[in-house]
Amino acid sequence: MNEQRVAVLGAGSWGSALAHLLGSKGHAVMLWDRDPDLIAQIQHSGVNTKYLPELPLGETVTATSSLPDALEDANWAILAVSSDGVRAVISEAAPILTPATALISAAKGLEADTGLTVSEIIHDLLIGHPYAGPVVLSGPNLANELVRGIPSASVVASTDPAPARAVQALLMTERTFRIYTHTDVKGVELGGALKNVLAIGGGISDGLGFGDNTKAALLTRGLMEMTQIGVAAGGDALTFLGLSGVGDLLATATSRLSRNYRVGLGLSEGRDTAEIVRDLHRVAEGVPTARAAQLLARRYGVTTPVFDAIAAVLDGRKPPASLVEELMSRNAREEFPF
Amino acid sequence: MNEQRVAVLGAGSWGSALAHLLGSKGHAVMLWDRDPDLIAQIQHSGVNTKYLPELPLGETVTATSSLPDALEDANWAILAVSSDGVRAVISEAAPILTPATALISAAKGLEADTGLTVSEIIHDLLIGHPYAGPVVLSGPNLANELVRGIPSASVVASTDPAPARAVQALLMTERTFRIYTHTDVKGVELGGALKNVLAIGGGISDGLGFGDNTKAALLTRGLMEMTQIGVAAGGDALTFLGLSGVGDLLATATSRLSRNYRVGLGLSEGRDTAEIVRDLHRVAEGVPTARAAQLLARRYGVTTPVFDAIAAVLDGRKPPASLVEELMSRNAREEFPF
Repeated sequence: MNEQRVAVLGAGSWGSALAHLLGSKGHAVMLWDRDPDLIAQIQHSGVNTKYLPELPLGETVTATSSLPDALEDANWAILAVSSDGVRAVISEAAPILTPATALISAAKGLEADTGLTVSEIIHDLLIGHPYAGPVVLSGPNLANELVRGIPSASVVASTDPAPARAVQALLMTERTFRIYTHTDVKGVELGGALKNVLAIGGGISDGLGFGDNTKAALLTRGLMEMTQIGVAAGGDALTFLGLSGVGDLLATATSRLSRNYRVGLGLSEGRDTAEIVRDLHRVAEGVPTARAAQLLARRYGVTTPVFDAIAAVLDGRKPPASLVEELMSRNAREEFPF
Repeated sequence: MNEQRVAVLGAGSWGSALAHLLGSKGHAVMLWDRDPDLIAQIQHSGVNTKYLPELPLGETVTATSSLPDALEDANWAILAVSSDGVRAVISEAAPILTPATALISAAKGLEADTGLTVSEIIHDLLIGHPYAGPVVLSGPNLANELVRGIPSASVVASTDPAPARAVQALLMTERTFRIYTHTDVKGVELGGALKNVLAIGGGISDGLGFGDNTKAALLTRGLMEMTQIGVAAGGDALTFLGLSGVGDLLATATSRLSRNYRVGLGLSEGRDTAEIVRDLHRVAEGVPTARAAQLLARRYGVTTPVFDAIAAVLDGRKPPASLVEELMSRNAREEFPF
């Protein structure tokens, strides 16, 4: 693909990793963030010392805290803020976005109060805009592995296959980042978002001293609950068998490095959610998404005992051990239909 | 359920764990093994010091090396030998098995030279017998966790739902072992068998120093390959999303305790398969199953790059790193259809 101008919105670890990857492919990248101190630091050193220390972002990556500057003449805008920041960024971008800039969502999460996915928030805000998209990117991608050149794979989805294929060409590299296309936008987004809630459950289970058997049971039953929500929302069950579903669950729900998993560990020690999140100094997407998942389960009439139990522990309504107790004490039943 | 007489065939860790569980539910269990020394040791001490050290099997569990004694008046016979031992045990049992004894297969693996599942081997050998079954048991169940009372879940499957429900009642306990029923015998068996091959791949990837991203990509693409084989063989794709598919993959392919994973670690060090297996002193089901998977993929015309690469590394035809290289260098494509 010819040199492209790409705005990456959000200079966290994932946004910075994507900026680095695109820069290394020869594209002109503008990395935007709302935080002027972070941007000044990146401009000064060429490194995001806060989120991706020791990695020179490369000569073709520049940083700005001006959204109009970032979006000017951009062929692409990649949204890489946390899901609770999406509404503000897109609202601010709406008056200056033109159809010449194609949107990519690299954010994983659901809006707590509405249950909307990131692409739904964007559609909501850009009604009337002559714009198609966004293409969503989701998969088992730890940012610090991708930037070290560790082979990684991911999925890009758009209802019409053409935009996803263009993003595949934009992002894919020969040895490091393998991209598959998909048309199930809803399923891909819900997988990437809901698995963060299950990662909290994995942390609770391990923190309480349960075993690999217990964690596998909780995560698998939880995966089936999220598949049901996805199918009710119009997604395809098989999507959850793929990289944005099972793949992401494998990479994060079992990793002690995952922020959501660490929220679960904290809960297992009897600490409360607000305190744990404060001490993390980073966003744990699973916390608001747990609330959104409850909303979706009620909306679609899906029974979700694992998600319910995690939400109840997060809210302090039930003790951490209830997560396992309630799964084990349910009536004997068949595995399928769900 | 009233007191039952249960023969458990195979006194490895899994057979012994099931004997212990059933004994603790008040059933009369005969634990059989071909190895007279192992049986003598269990008879003498009440503990299987070789495979489940420190666990008293309980007063209602007795041990025998006589297959006729084990099967006499048994309501149930649970097959818990390694898959390469199934043919010999069932051949020996065939003349003495009566329709009063219902069969349960707790073995996970495929016959290397035929690609047959355990239940298919049994059907093959018991043609003409007035017998229904077996019910198959499969799921994310590490034996040493189950015997320590750690909450675990599993699946039992039979084409007609009634036998599976009876096995559910036989095995399920209130706090420790949660059993789901299923009717997709083929899918449940293939999931439990094929995931052992992927566990070898997980070990190769970790052993070579690749990351969580890489392992998640390999396992997920491999899961999709095994789902395709399963669907081609008459199973249901969704079964692979459940406890016998994803669940078992979560518990074993990421565990350094898994024998198959350790085979992969050994391969990553450049050792050869025969030597690794000899040093394990236990059966690694993934090794013969890798060969069987190749046979099934060819039979059904399914493209299986991950399974192919693992088989090639096991056979010494390709270096371990080819597993990752070949996945990453394939042409850009869609995630689905498979």
